[in-house]
Amino acid sequence: MDEAKIFLSERDMPQAWYNINPDLPAPLQPPLHPGTGQPLGPDDLAPIFPMALIAQEMSMDPWIDIPDDVMRVLRLWRPSPLHRAYALEEHLGTPARIYYKNESVSPPGSHKPNTAVAQAYYNREEGVTRIITETGAGQWGSALSFACCQFGIICEVYMVRISYDTKPYRRLLMNTWGAQCYPSPSDRTNSGRAILAEDPDSPGSLGIAISEAVEVAAQADDAKYSLGSVLNHVLLHQTVVGLECKKQFEMVGDYPDIICGNVGGGSNFAGVSFPFVKDKLEGRDIQIIATEPTACPTMTRGLYHYDFGDTAQLTPLLKMFTLGHTFIPPPIHAGGLRYHGAAPQISLLVSQGVMEARALHQKAVFEAAVTFARTEGHLPAPETAHGIRAAIDEALKCKETGEEKCILIGYSGHGHFDLAAYDQYLTGDMVDYELPQEAIDAATEGLAEVE
Amino acid sequence: MDEAKIFLSERDMPQAWYNINPDLPAPLQPPLHPGTGQPLGPDDLAPIFPMALIAQEMSMDPWIDIPDDVMRVLRLWRPSPLHRAYALEEHLGTPARIYYKNESVSPPGSHKPNTAVAQAYYNREEGVTRIITETGAGQWGSALSFACCQFGIICEVYMVRISYDTKPYRRLLMNTWGAQCYPSPSDRTNSGRAILAEDPDSPGSLGIAISEAVEVAAQADDAKYSLGSVLNHVLLHQTVVGLECKKQFEMVGDYPDIICGNVGGGSNFAGVSFPFVKDKLEGRDIQIIATEPTACPTMTRGLYHYDFGDTAQLTPLLKMFTLGHTFIPPPIHAGGLRYHGAAPQISLLVSQGVMEARALHQKAVFEAAVTFARTEGHLPAPETAHGIRAAIDEALKCKETGEEKCILIGYSGHGHFDLAAYDQYLTGDMVDYELPQEAIDAATEGLAEVE
Repeated sequence: MDEAKIFLSERDMPQAWYNINPDLPAPLQPPLHPGTGQPLGPDDLAPIFPMALIAQEMSMDPWIDIPDDVMRVLRLWRPSPLHRAYALEEHLGTPARIYYKNESVSPPGSHKPNTAVAQAYYNREEGVTRIITETGAGQWGSALSFACCQFGIICEVYMVRISYDTKPYRRLLMNTWGAQCYPSPSDRTNSGRAILAEDPDSPGSLGIAISEAVEVAAQADDAKYSLGSVLNHVLLHQTVVGLECKKQFEMVGDYPDIICGNVGGGSNFAGVSFPFVKDKLEGRDIQIIATEPTACPTMTRGLYHYDFGDTAQLTPLLKMFTLGHTFIPPPIHAGGLRYHGAAPQISLLVSQGVMEARALHQKAVFEAAVTFARTEGHLPAPETAHGIRAAIDEALKCKETGEEKCILIGYSGHGHFDLAAYDQYLTGDMVDYELPQEAIDAATEGLAEVE
Repeated sequence: MDEAKIFLSERDMPQAWYNINPDLPAPLQPPLHPGTGQPLGPDDLAPIFPMALIAQEMSMDPWIDIPDDVMRVLRLWRPSPLHRAYALEEHLGTPARIYYKNESVSPPGSHKPNTAVAQAYYNREEGVTRIITETGAGQWGSALSFACCQFGIICEVYMVRISYDTKPYRRLLMNTWGAQCYPSPSDRTNSGRAILAEDPDSPGSLGIAISEAVEVAAQADDAKYSLGSVLNHVLLHQTVVGLECKKQFEMVGDYPDIICGNVGGGSNFAGVSFPFVKDKLEGRDIQIIATEPTACPTMTRGLYHYDFGDTAQLTPLLKMFTLGHTFIPPPIHAGGLRYHGAAPQISLLVSQGVMEARALHQKAVFEAAVTFARTEGHLPAPETAHGIRAAIDEALKCKETGEEKCILIGYSGHGHFDLAAYDQYLTGDMVDYELPQEAIDAATEGLAEVE
């Protein structure tokens, strides 16, 4: 039996990020200004992002060097291990070889700090002393808190109030790394005060929290805003995941036939898959499966259309798969996948058939999560378990056909703060959501007016 | 800069556990039967432990081979990384080199599964189908649940009721791995029913939970009992930690001058330190610092005397440092260190001056924990932070003297389920406990009658 974990030396860490933009199989439609509808220029983004990140956002360079100070912080946990899931394979009785790239070993427990660290660094380089962001359940907020702490930057997080009140652990994690965390809507911004005036007990939403964070950042000279997914600079910072994977597969003389991962905004899946997408575009035969919840079926039932990134229509318009910026998904436990859109690069690759999208019900996803925990030991996040479900389904197909396929799972994070969801599954109280077509139509019908 | 993490190949994992008994600098006093006061024989333990573990408990072989099936499970996360704490060193401005051996990467998040896996294996080999144990806050219970799940054994955990009710996360972790978890005192045992008859609202205690677990195991033909610390077979299973460390230090051409870790029952500290204790007994100069809370100062203020392992006087008598089996420590957050005794081997080494004991206040411990989290990123368990505190203190001494010492921390587990304690520290609500001498005297005065 070969090794169950493939460790890479720090000397073999990728020295540059991979930017997929120049390699895309069709031209990317430009982001448009939310007010004018005209293609966006760097100056439009300057009030909220540092120039280096704006340059990366629009770059057509295939490789962008990773600065030494970013490498120094990534080395606190990177390179992450690539595991061979022997115990899961044996349990399934499959001839398939299953691997998972374990991003849960980072201090915040997910892939998110791969970009948070880079963003904090570039902000510091341009003299920014405060970074403002929003967070839902807290994965992104805790990652940015960790990163800002490493670069001596103040981090302020607007956290959706319902999560702030009911899920205190990630908030406490942010505090431990020195961040300020405010329940949103708050009385600190015009956007927040307007909502509170209408509804003092508002539970908040990601859309409101984005509005508050952007408002604070845009009005302050010393502060910038930071986003944890969707944009190209975020996606490319995540490619260290897939680049490490490729070297690790080389070490054991293997290569994936199938890649499975989950898509919320798309940064995790971009990270693990884009370096392999490059190979596929050059002719290699790889099946690339982007999973999402049936409760938020952006790629499988949404439209490929220009839309806003937020409810309040403050962000640029992006050409992407979307359920409409007013869509409110049912309360599934994979909070990180409850987003109405998907990154433009991911959307383009799905529309071109380079990636295939697959929607999954949450009970089937948690069944896979428990199977994984009872074989491989490690407890996946609900988001992560979507990719595991797809991988198990593909491995079971191999059991039927006898094919010895190599399957890679993007293991994006651990579920240590999601045990209440596991409890609901194990006690039989979990429900699935199947959206009626009218709900999709209602959410997307306004899109015709966008652009 | 050298690598920040030293990864060992699975091929270089230790193939045998190190048993310190034959190398101890003075003879170990034998365990005594709780009823007769006579030295214990294997038959006395047979009702509650499998014979292979009883043999290890009394073995004088210095090396005991690790079975292949145990290795197969350990490989789900072992070998664990040895980190060089560059960021912490830089923050402290110390010339010392600080390393930490990271046991938090295991599925339950601590060193505990190193022995849980071995114990589950030997039980299965002897036909045991159920293992019964107790747990306080849940570290040990979750580790044994994980291990039993790997070997198809039913795991039943009696969890102190106050923790069962107020700290649900580790209980949910046990359920996810398929274990049954009962609040103790329960109505499932004579011991539990007797307590409930007197006090239906009893919050429970580790002593009561041990009584219930031992009672169930002793009365059933298909079940055995399992203990997560104190006993020799537990300590030796943990030596994979220190044995891996030695190979990792060899890889970078370094060797510790100082080893810091925490002692509850002692298994974690035995694991990281015993392979180095062997070198020290052969003449190598190493300072070995065993830390404990001032609120439960077993080694610094207890007596070195025979005592029971549990409140109910069911266990064998062990010669050890003890605060008396009736001692109830104040409610510090490092629940795993709230034990009245310390393993006989650790106690003997402290009494012989091979190890030094050091008591620490919890506010100073949490200050160290937060410093660690804000530099190295990873969030230590409160227990683990005791060793970090001692290491930081030693590193600051090096800053004064200019000595370039090499310091090793036994990083026993993560603090993902301890964020409420961090919150209490950060908001200034944490208190320290200094026990008056009368409290120690009152707890230990009964020991004269023991034996």
